[in-house]
Amino acid sequence: MQEKTRRVIIENVQPQIDGGRFPIRRAFGEKVQVTAGIFVDGHDSLAGELVYRVDGRETWHVRPMKLLGNDLWKASFRATETADYLYTVRAWIDRFRTWLDKVKKKHGAGQNVSVEMQEGAIIVEEAAERADGENRERLLARARFLKGEERTLDKIQLATEPELIRLMDTYPDRGTMTEYDKRLRVSVEPLRARFSSWYEMFPRSCSESPGSHGTFQDCIELLPYIADMGFDVLYLPPIHPIGLTHRKGRNNITQADPQDPGSPWAIGSSDGGHRSVHPLLGTMDDFKALVKEARRREIEVALDIAFQCSPDHPYVGEHPDWFRSRPDGSIQYAENPPKKYEDIYPFDFDSNQTESLCNELLDVVRFWIDKGVRIFRVDNPHTKPLRFWEWLIAEVKRGHPETIFLAEAFTRPKTMYRLAKGGFTQSYTYFTWRNLKWEIQKYMEELTQTEVAEFFWPSFWPNTPDILPEYLQVGGRLAFVVRLALAATLSSNYGIYGPAFELCENEAKEPFSEEYLNSEKYEIRHWDRNRSDSLKALIKRINIIRKENPALQQTRNLMFHKVERKEIICYSKYTDDLKNVILTAVNLDPHHTHSTWLTLPAKALGLDSNKPYQMHELIGDARYLWGAGENYIELDPQVMPVQIFRIRKHLRSEHDFDYFM
Amino acid sequence: MQEKTRRVIIENVQPQIDGGRFPIRRAFGEKVQVTAGIFVDGHDSLAGELVYRVDGRETWHVRPMKLLGNDLWKASFRATETADYLYTVRAWIDRFRTWLDKVKKKHGAGQNVSVEMQEGAIIVEEAAERADGENRERLLARARFLKGEERTLDKIQLATEPELIRLMDTYPDRGTMTEYDKRLRVSVEPLRARFSSWYEMFPRSCSESPGSHGTFQDCIELLPYIADMGFDVLYLPPIHPIGLTHRKGRNNITQADPQDPGSPWAIGSSDGGHRSVHPLLGTMDDFKALVKEARRREIEVALDIAFQCSPDHPYVGEHPDWFRSRPDGSIQYAENPPKKYEDIYPFDFDSNQTESLCNELLDVVRFWIDKGVRIFRVDNPHTKPLRFWEWLIAEVKRGHPETIFLAEAFTRPKTMYRLAKGGFTQSYTYFTWRNLKWEIQKYMEELTQTEVAEFFWPSFWPNTPDILPEYLQVGGRLAFVVRLALAATLSSNYGIYGPAFELCENEAKEPFSEEYLNSEKYEIRHWDRNRSDSLKALIKRINIIRKENPALQQTRNLMFHKVERKEIICYSKYTDDLKNVILTAVNLDPHHTHSTWLTLPAKALGLDSNKPYQMHELIGDARYLWGAGENYIELDPQVMPVQIFRIRKHLRSEHDFDYFM
Repeated sequence: MQEKTRRVIIENVQPQIDGGRFPIRRAFGEKVQVTAGIFVDGHDSLAGELVYRVDGRETWHVRPMKLLGNDLWKASFRATETADYLYTVRAWIDRFRTWLDKVKKKHGAGQNVSVEMQEGAIIVEEAAERADGENRERLLARARFLKGEERTLDKIQLATEPELIRLMDTYPDRGTMTEYDKRLRVSVEPLRARFSSWYEMFPRSCSESPGSHGTFQDCIELLPYIADMGFDVLYLPPIHPIGLTHRKGRNNITQADPQDPGSPWAIGSSDGGHRSVHPLLGTMDDFKALVKEARRREIEVALDIAFQCSPDHPYVGEHPDWFRSRPDGSIQYAENPPKKYEDIYPFDFDSNQTESLCNELLDVVRFWIDKGVRIFRVDNPHTKPLRFWEWLIAEVKRGHPETIFLAEAFTRPKTMYRLAKGGFTQSYTYFTWRNLKWEIQKYMEELTQTEVAEFFWPSFWPNTPDILPEYLQVGGRLAFVVRLALAATLSSNYGIYGPAFELCENEAKEPFSEEYLNSEKYEIRHWDRNRSDSLKALIKRINIIRKENPALQQTRNLMFHKVERKEIICYSKYTDDLKNVILTAVNLDPHHTHSTWLTLPAKALGLDSNKPYQMHELIGDARYLWGAGENYIELDPQVMPVQIFRIRKHLRSEHDFDYFM
Repeated sequence: MQEKTRRVIIENVQPQIDGGRFPIRRAFGEKVQVTAGIFVDGHDSLAGELVYRVDGRETWHVRPMKLLGNDLWKASFRATETADYLYTVRAWIDRFRTWLDKVKKKHGAGQNVSVEMQEGAIIVEEAAERADGENRERLLARARFLKGEERTLDKIQLATEPELIRLMDTYPDRGTMTEYDKRLRVSVEPLRARFSSWYEMFPRSCSESPGSHGTFQDCIELLPYIADMGFDVLYLPPIHPIGLTHRKGRNNITQADPQDPGSPWAIGSSDGGHRSVHPLLGTMDDFKALVKEARRREIEVALDIAFQCSPDHPYVGEHPDWFRSRPDGSIQYAENPPKKYEDIYPFDFDSNQTESLCNELLDVVRFWIDKGVRIFRVDNPHTKPLRFWEWLIAEVKRGHPETIFLAEAFTRPKTMYRLAKGGFTQSYTYFTWRNLKWEIQKYMEELTQTEVAEFFWPSFWPNTPDILPEYLQVGGRLAFVVRLALAATLSSNYGIYGPAFELCENEAKEPFSEEYLNSEKYEIRHWDRNRSDSLKALIKRINIIRKENPALQQTRNLMFHKVERKEIICYSKYTDDLKNVILTAVNLDPHHTHSTWLTLPAKALGLDSNKPYQMHELIGDARYLWGAGENYIELDPQVMPVQIFRIRKHLRSEHDFDYFM
């Protein structure tokens, strides 16, 4: 078949990112739903199939596609391995159905179809040649019948039997088959990539005794506390030796006291670099014990990947060509003028000597994977070449597809999105600064209703060691409750920096600053984790609600509801089968009580608009009867500025025990 | 530079159709405005350029790109040849600006920048190496100054001089340059492809004497009539010999009388096929005379390309393998069951013998190009392989880029759009069936505000020989006025099938049919072109308005205005510089007078909202003063259901002569 007379056209296979340059992202077990425009000149019937396979294997799996109308076809598959899959679409002219359609129409109009019967016999004979065994005989018998002397009516009867159609579908004539000109890719991530609750803490602040440098052993002792709150990722800032040269003192002053511990991000000293642990934290065996103990409690330890060096890092002496020399012979330290980070040397990716550097950095990641680490939070990835990360993550995932990379890229949107396209599993977001209802809704729509949802998986952080948002500074404890609830219910991945968060630490270094006063980045803190005003019980409750309700374990399934008051934001999440529907209402004003009326979209949420249903408030375990039309919500922040309802349909009796669905 | 440390990213260059698989379309002299996302890790400054060239030439033309914000860059170029152009985007790290930015910030913060001065000197020295002559000396002198003993303040002064920046921009360091991974294509079409007014007529109905078969000579004599109405394309249904076998009679009956002329689309007889003219129309020389005479009046003759044969076509005997044989030895005629077209044999593109067929069909087009034809209206292109047209049009345009192909594809949207992507210059549309205000607006938004506008150029036809729309059947003469005005002002390309149109022929063959009674497709008609109720004067007026107002010579520049009454549709078109703004208001109800209030968007139309402006109604040559806020429009269909205003700003005095702008 020459190219110019290949008749079948396949176009716009979706999802597809940047013309197939980047993969889409799915979690283990999730559905990949594929659509394509498929058409042909004239009136012929078509058949289409979605084919997919794990990248690197030979055999394609096949799903027949269904015509939705207007030449749009659809099929889906489920990813059952954590791996990269390829998928594409094929289609061909269905000669048998084309023939059948013509026969039915002509016969229906009373036209003679005796020549058509001969044509049909030929089509069926050709299918028989592609078949074998019994099916071959069955097809040959039917071809003979169509060719024979029987009544046309009986032949048409035979041609339309499901048995023959099934046989013909089994041995299609693929002579006209076209394959879409791209093989698209989906990265299938482990489940924890889609649903995770992160707790960040500084190991050196974990000692029981004030003033002492915490250890990995102290961290192990805190695991019950962390597990009880319901977290499943424990993220540690860098655990490596810290440089002495230009070490920063408390509150980021340039002259450190001798006893100041320095910033963990100023990596490397005579004790070692990115493959070493800080001696005061313990040994590599202690670290491995922490990873092991955490895993026993279903917690993964996430390490910080900060590709930069203190001036004392062994690399500086061993590989001077990995850094940028200045005309005065000094090495260029990090700066974002007028800010200077003299305790940090960035790597120089502009030189022509980066091959050994790139390979070493890849080896560093592999080193920690060997130590049992599966999750990495990458510090400032947007200050290293974006293609470098694409290469590094691909290399790592080739051997360890279960690895998760979280991008800490608080930068402009195109760069954030490019990092995610290039392989980062999860990404920090602008959530940290989205406080008002309209800005939350607008941002969520970008993240969940546009193409962005195909590759960018947000992780929502109400605070980080670098960011104490003004909303928390101003709003006090209730502001922490609001931001916690928003993060944990809007996004299936979220995290807090503790114990600063649960203890509602909200004093900034200075007005208009987002820096913490006495930041743990520059000193060891001692926290009273048992303070009576700790949010740990609420955090635990919310994490239980997340674990028990699959609707909250995805991010794309979000629907906002219109309520009049701008202080109240209200949204639902639901599973595909609508068996689990969670409605969250949050009073964004931590100072005043607000109330509103809410009408739910019955059909979209699977409600019977004629029947009442139960709203089970999961934080306080209260239950309400709601029905069609307006329902009342009141949120007194002094009681609780948040309500998280499970909608329980099919109300059966007056009891309030769990007997729905 | 290794791939993984190439730092600059270029993404999403727009416009781009299906990932660059298809070209965009522009008219000669039009602007191609290109945007791209360009960014880099870190804080470095970037430089970007749009490069473009005529396909096949070596030298790229360059336009520097401008940062619009949020990493989006823009530049544009004008196509000054009717040809295919390629365009793409390049970007690199602007080392000098990066350096300058750092120096300014550090110096501004009171930091020492003496080492920076040495760095700057090196950057300038390297630029000098890329320069020669005086510029080289200038750069070297400045490098020496930066290196020397002068005061830092004087050095900074020097570094920020426009002269040095200009020199550095002239010799940039392209070491970090990235080129976008695709070269995109724009098909630049002749001006008539964007702005044309078509008149379709059957040459055989052009004789002065009733009952006689018209000739090309009769057509020549009608040229003044057509030119006077203002048309610039005269489209003739097929002019070839017509088959006798299964010839259709009047009103499409299957038994023709001996004197019935047959359908011109049943091409081919013993007198010849696609390269011959019907003997009763005249000779090839007569045809060439028509083309020549038409061109003297700025009218191009458009031929009908109908790739199908009557059973009597010479091809049938000479190339039986170009047709499909049936088991009974007969050749498959065209059918769309239960409809039969026994006078037509379609070509068989499913065979493996299509190479000679495709080449012959291409040669047919080239044959008529040799005879002077520049425009082809292609009959039912959607019943031949879509890739075949892509090939044929590309082949033709390689030698004759000025050729225009109009696709008569009344089929589903994806196929229509695919034909346009594959090379058809203009396309018939669903306009013919869009009658209500909301459906016209929705369709126009699809055609002008979406990606479709980049490749699909609509041609609006209120009627064709195949389609007498119900609106015309029901609405009478005023319905013709309404549809004419809509077609001619909504779309810069439009056409009518005359004289049926100007004589308001609106009798259908039967109820619920769109077929004309006594259709010219099957018989010779005699028309009284001088009837007093002819619309020819109005057509002339509207075509003059189109010619005098460049705003009406494009289609994408459309803006609808909100008016309350659903019977009144109101819209503007404007030139880029807003010097020509045309507002059209149409009463879609040909039976009743309707009126409405209209507030114009002053800024978008370039109006001073504090000043009155003149609305010059161009059909009736009336003038009105309008101003900010609501203005009144009343459309009495008995007077004129349409008003076409030119908005004349900068009103200077009370006279009503033309002294604006």
